[in-house]
Amino acid sequence: MPDVVYIKLRLLAISGSLRAASYNTALLRAAALLAPDNVEIVLYTDIVNLPLFNPDLEGYEPDSVLNLRKLVGSVDGILIASPEYAHGVSGVMKNALDWLVSGEEFVGKPVALYNTSPRASHAYAALQEIISVMSAYIVNEACISVALLGTQLDAMGIVAHPEIAQSMRQSLLDFTRAISNSKSSVQAGD
Amino acid sequence: MPDVVYIKLRLLAISGSLRAASYNTALLRAAALLAPDNVEIVLYTDIVNLPLFNPDLEGYEPDSVLNLRKLVGSVDGILIASPEYAHGVSGVMKNALDWLVSGEEFVGKPVALYNTSPRASHAYAALQEIISVMSAYIVNEACISVALLGTQLDAMGIVAHPEIAQSMRQSLLDFTRAISNSKSSVQAGD
Repeated sequence: MPDVVYIKLRLLAISGSLRAASYNTALLRAAALLAPDNVEIVLYTDIVNLPLFNPDLEGYEPDSVLNLRKLVGSVDGILIASPEYAHGVSGVMKNALDWLVSGEEFVGKPVALYNTSPRASHAYAALQEIISVMSAYIVNEACISVALLGTQLDAMGIVAHPEIAQSMRQSLLDFTRAISNSKSSVQAGD
Repeated sequence: MPDVVYIKLRLLAISGSLRAASYNTALLRAAALLAPDNVEIVLYTDIVNLPLFNPDLEGYEPDSVLNLRKLVGSVDGILIASPEYAHGVSGVMKNALDWLVSGEEFVGKPVALYNTSPRASHAYAALQEIISVMSAYIVNEACISVALLGTQLDAMGIVAHPEIAQSMRQSLLDFTRAISNSKSSVQAGD
């Protein structure tokens, strides 16, 4: 079996927070810095430009929505980090997912979920349920909790933090390995 | 004890769907038509104009957000009907609630929750959790499920439907009675 980890991969990182100093966004920025050489992580910065979801716009979606779907369709996997607000998924995150429900781009897409506030489990569990129902492929071994709340760490701080950086590196390795393996098994079955 | 049901009450109805033919919006429109004489129900039509929630805007909220908070603060109770998308609360609904988390207007506010698709229970349960954590007062006896999905009923159709209209009337009666009773007990303790 070839060492499939070194397939070149491109991942999309989606933060469910618009806060400039968001721990979720910081973690995804850190992931981009900590990624293996063969992995490019693109941070999705256009979530703020998505309109509120309206099913009547199906077929008439604005460019921001079409671009999101195109991006999701073009990458090998998705990293999601999203805050919990009032025991629920952030409206920002759910709104982006609502726009992806009717498309095919998210179906079967490998997803790693990060929880930056392990004591908050409602939104994380709800996200797992939502993403599973949307038929994406949650790579469980890559989903990790990283207790960032209250640490004041930004992306560089996370990269410089030995334990956290190590668990992110491991998560990214597990994630890309799962993606590579699923790609090579698809190829093997071709 | 006076017949407290006849206190004049004003309720805000919030739909979590932007779909023009939404069953949730139709149910709230029907509620406005079925309300007892002493109850005015105002449909919130500005949810589409709320920006995506950003905690950094605290203190600099746009007018749409300030108006929502003012409206919520000014009414005696809130009716909420919201669709379930991919086993989750609609992003539209959650985004509106996210803007209310940091204000005081929602705290203790009587809320009746309607579910127009009883077979979909994830979002309804999640909304109950979210609204409870936000310290609103969910009036359980007024929260009802009305199986509208697939009926093609609009607001007038709901009003003309004997069983559904009757359960809405009963819900509104139970809701306004609970509000009136809580008001009179506050006054009695004054």
